[in-house]
Amino acid sequence: MAEDQALGAFLDDLASERSTPGGGGAAAISGAMGAALVSMVCNLTIGKPKYAESEAELKEVLAKSEGLRAELTKAIGDDVQAFDAVMGAYGLPKGETEEAKAERTAKIQAALKVATDVPLECARLCAEVVKLSAVTAEKGNVNVVSDAGVAVQSAYAGLLSAALNVRVNAKSIKDRDFAEGRLQELESLLSDAGATTTATYAAVRAKLD
Amino acid sequence: MAEDQALGAFLDDLASERSTPGGGGAAAISGAMGAALVSMVCNLTIGKPKYAESEAELKEVLAKSEGLRAELTKAIGDDVQAFDAVMGAYGLPKGETEEAKAERTAKIQAALKVATDVPLECARLCAEVVKLSAVTAEKGNVNVVSDAGVAVQSAYAGLLSAALNVRVNAKSIKDRDFAEGRLQELESLLSDAGATTTATYAAVRAKLD
Repeated sequence: MAEDQALGAFLDDLASERSTPGGGGAAAISGAMGAALVSMVCNLTIGKPKYAESEAELKEVLAKSEGLRAELTKAIGDDVQAFDAVMGAYGLPKGETEEAKAERTAKIQAALKVATDVPLECARLCAEVVKLSAVTAEKGNVNVVSDAGVAVQSAYAGLLSAALNVRVNAKSIKDRDFAEGRLQELESLLSDAGATTTATYAAVRAKLD
Repeated sequence: MAEDQALGAFLDDLASERSTPGGGGAAAISGAMGAALVSMVCNLTIGKPKYAESEAELKEVLAKSEGLRAELTKAIGDDVQAFDAVMGAYGLPKGETEEAKAERTAKIQAALKVATDVPLECARLCAEVVKLSAVTAEKGNVNVVSDAGVAVQSAYAGLLSAALNVRVNAKSIKDRDFAEGRLQELESLLSDAGATTTATYAAVRAKLD
């Protein structure tokens, strides 16, 4: 499992001439760090009398951020599998008959659809972390508001990164309805999260002045 | 050493109610992932006849990105030390005499200066990674251009994150010449890297269309 690997060894693998782990794994880690920092701010707020009014809401945020962190941690490895499946399908013998050729093409196309949906799911999870970061920046312990600001930037970087992997795979998909539907959803996630990130980072900066 | 810790365990610590590791460690990891991805793109370009013209330049980029990755990996732990030193100084007995009070204040101020310079150094390293990402996005193997796009977003997120930790500590420093000088340098790093990141991400997107 990717989460059992030492951080330094993961960075060595990322830097190596092997294609995986690559940007998709880095995107999932950025999202997971964002979720972890949302949880940290909640953990340092819940139980403090000064923030009693927001306690119930931040308990809900914490439950969600811990769920998202688990999913994003799992997503680090999903990306490697999806990439390897595409490479494996392209590596199949090209075939001599029309039937064999069509079968190879179908396998490539099926693998590309999975390799589009895996980073799209990572993008959706990162977009959720962006929303939770905004709540913690507003209602969390002001002594750790900078951590809420780091959370939102990490999660948004994860979303922007996953978006590139969605595009790179969607581009080669022949089923254009499938591809365009995914790209449309992606645009909507990027637009909403971009606005939330800008507003949240500015709010955090204002609290630090 | 932070790099020997398993990724999942690091994320658990980040999410916990302990203040360290926090946003400063996440900032350094974002920068280190960016540097690693710059290295990966270089490693997948160098030696390919199609990119022979850029080979010498990309070898220089690779040497720099591997140096930056080592420094950013080390910076994960530096942040914890700097934070703990500030907390330790605030925790000293307040003292009864004017002399004892002044001594405690001097120790807090010295620790705050270190805790400003540590994330500023992380910000500088991330800004260098942003510049190298731009070169790899332009001249690296086009098959992995999305990884150059992830590199620039990771490094810029690291810079934006480190910036918050510079501000939070600079705010409490009484030596305003020291603080203002650091904040001025930070603004300049953010402004240059912001422009480079926007341009690089757009260039990567254009290559994926």
